[in-house]
Amino acid sequence: MSVNIVIDTLGGDNGAPVCVGGAVKGLKENPDVKLFLTGRKTELDQLLSKYKYDRNRIEVVDCSEEITCHDAPVEAVKTKKDSSLVVGLTLVKEGKADAFISAGSSGAVLAGGSLIVGRAKGVKRTPLAPLIPTTEGMSLLIDCGANVDAKPEVLVQFAKMGSIYMENIVGIKNPKVAIVNIGTEEEKGNALVKETFPLLKACTSINFVGSIESREIPFGKADVILTEAFVGNVILKLYEGLSKMILKEIKGAMTSTVRSKIGALMTKKSLKATLSSFNASNKGGAPLLGMKGLVVKVHGNSKEEEIISAIRQCRNFVETDVSGKIIRGLRDEGTVRE
Amino acid sequence: MSVNIVIDTLGGDNGAPVCVGGAVKGLKENPDVKLFLTGRKTELDQLLSKYKYDRNRIEVVDCSEEITCHDAPVEAVKTKKDSSLVVGLTLVKEGKADAFISAGSSGAVLAGGSLIVGRAKGVKRTPLAPLIPTTEGMSLLIDCGANVDAKPEVLVQFAKMGSIYMENIVGIKNPKVAIVNIGTEEEKGNALVKETFPLLKACTSINFVGSIESREIPFGKADVILTEAFVGNVILKLYEGLSKMILKEIKGAMTSTVRSKIGALMTKKSLKATLSSFNASNKGGAPLLGMKGLVVKVHGNSKEEEIISAIRQCRNFVETDVSGKIIRGLRDEGTVRE
Repeated sequence: MSVNIVIDTLGGDNGAPVCVGGAVKGLKENPDVKLFLTGRKTELDQLLSKYKYDRNRIEVVDCSEEITCHDAPVEAVKTKKDSSLVVGLTLVKEGKADAFISAGSSGAVLAGGSLIVGRAKGVKRTPLAPLIPTTEGMSLLIDCGANVDAKPEVLVQFAKMGSIYMENIVGIKNPKVAIVNIGTEEEKGNALVKETFPLLKACTSINFVGSIESREIPFGKADVILTEAFVGNVILKLYEGLSKMILKEIKGAMTSTVRSKIGALMTKKSLKATLSSFNASNKGGAPLLGMKGLVVKVHGNSKEEEIISAIRQCRNFVETDVSGKIIRGLRDEGTVRE
Repeated sequence: MSVNIVIDTLGGDNGAPVCVGGAVKGLKENPDVKLFLTGRKTELDQLLSKYKYDRNRIEVVDCSEEITCHDAPVEAVKTKKDSSLVVGLTLVKEGKADAFISAGSSGAVLAGGSLIVGRAKGVKRTPLAPLIPTTEGMSLLIDCGANVDAKPEVLVQFAKMGSIYMENIVGIKNPKVAIVNIGTEEEKGNALVKETFPLLKACTSINFVGSIESREIPFGKADVILTEAFVGNVILKLYEGLSKMILKEIKGAMTSTVRSKIGALMTKKSLKATLSSFNASNKGGAPLLGMKGLVVKVHGNSKEEEIISAIRQCRNFVETDVSGKIIRGLRDEGTVRE
């Protein structure tokens, strides 16, 4: 079986060079993968000429337009028909590719995914579900996308999709699902959580463990962290901002005196391994689940490693047929069990 | 002017000893303060006998009951009439004390504040507003309390109360107010944010600077971080959990080898100053704003320093008449300006 993946080479902070480097290395690691690179042909051909690779396995698709983070997402997707993002997503829509990877504007990837690729049958909304680092490994934070003010039955679907993803892609058997709440007692929460809680409890196809307070998230108390998109977005960005702030402050403190500078050098090797667990490189991108094909958003400042990791993630996703499992999972169960 | 403050000596993780120690030291620092200690008289008298202090300035109020974090808050407040919490809040209600400090159950402090002390005239809801550490100092996170699913006009009141608090207690002139959002463009957000945004923009008594994404919160981009209580609670607890997790992982890494252990010792002094900014000791407690008196919740595991800091905070609050300023501020402005 061959897995066809599109890489959008425009829109990311580091441009086409990291996409091309990641693509060539990703090909070597995954012999069953074929790649489409959407972007500026002249630039891509020049970058590719520096590498040795099987020319039958990379196809460059020339595009004259680029969608940036300054564009209004929906409008950009509708008007910039020859952008690397729209052309790439169209390849997925037409069945020529199974998956699409982009480091471009989150809003445009979300909008393009919905408008061009479209939802799979039975899927109410398509969540954006990144993996976040914890002391136990990683957890799936679902949803961080554009589905603000979602309804309880939508959250139940997200819980199912997240469970299927964690079981098949991350390899966690019977993943624990918890809903983000402001207390652990069942009667706690806002209206949405109170309505969703009993539906999750009644859902036999997931391993629902109850509420999780945000202070427990970094300690890996659940594998699937279920929440409405506004709260998910706040959690994801605070994770990012607070990690960055604390590491910066610590680095500043450690290099503030000659004595501490020498000490910092001595701890550097041990610290580096820990700090690397706070960057997203090895975690792959955030998938938009429940689409007709796979759409993966990688971080704007992704480097080659993130692209390689996202290629691996897409291959696993297709080979284990996560899309099919999600569609069948939602169909077999009905969308909500009472 | 004398400022009368109640300290609830039961309910906290560290019991009466830290409350008594903090009380005696707080008295020395604040000559205009008088204290009531509510709790077990025998224990309190014994603890107090170890210190030299002006006996006219501390009054012990004997209570036979204790509210714990295992009690259902509202029921406990209604039934445990002789608890240190209820007796203490009643002293505020009766005007015998100006302020109340407790390290007990958050839920019970919130419930007791509302049920016993009550809201000031014109106040729709009473927010819980802790200070959180940032690279620039600290910001007020309002609301983290029990007002989930609040309405837009309630958030506008919170913005005003938060501004008055930051200006008078923390001493920040014309504090910047931002609303937590999932993007910085005005059209972003959930229904609540979209409805609240124009009301804040039209509010002339605050310095509204627009939306803030959670990744910017740790960098002190605003002085008053306005959000609905569910989201505020998630931010507060994630701040706590993630800081704890990162510091633990770093400590582990730094002491993983002999070489890194020596390095860790050399950086210890410099690091300590930085790490101390992540604990709440110097920040005082979280006030419940808009009450007829001041109710301050300090962290469950508060030590003497937190009690001293909370006493200082209460004295400033009373001396600068923040309650009066809040009531007049809400009255003069109307509750919402269009």
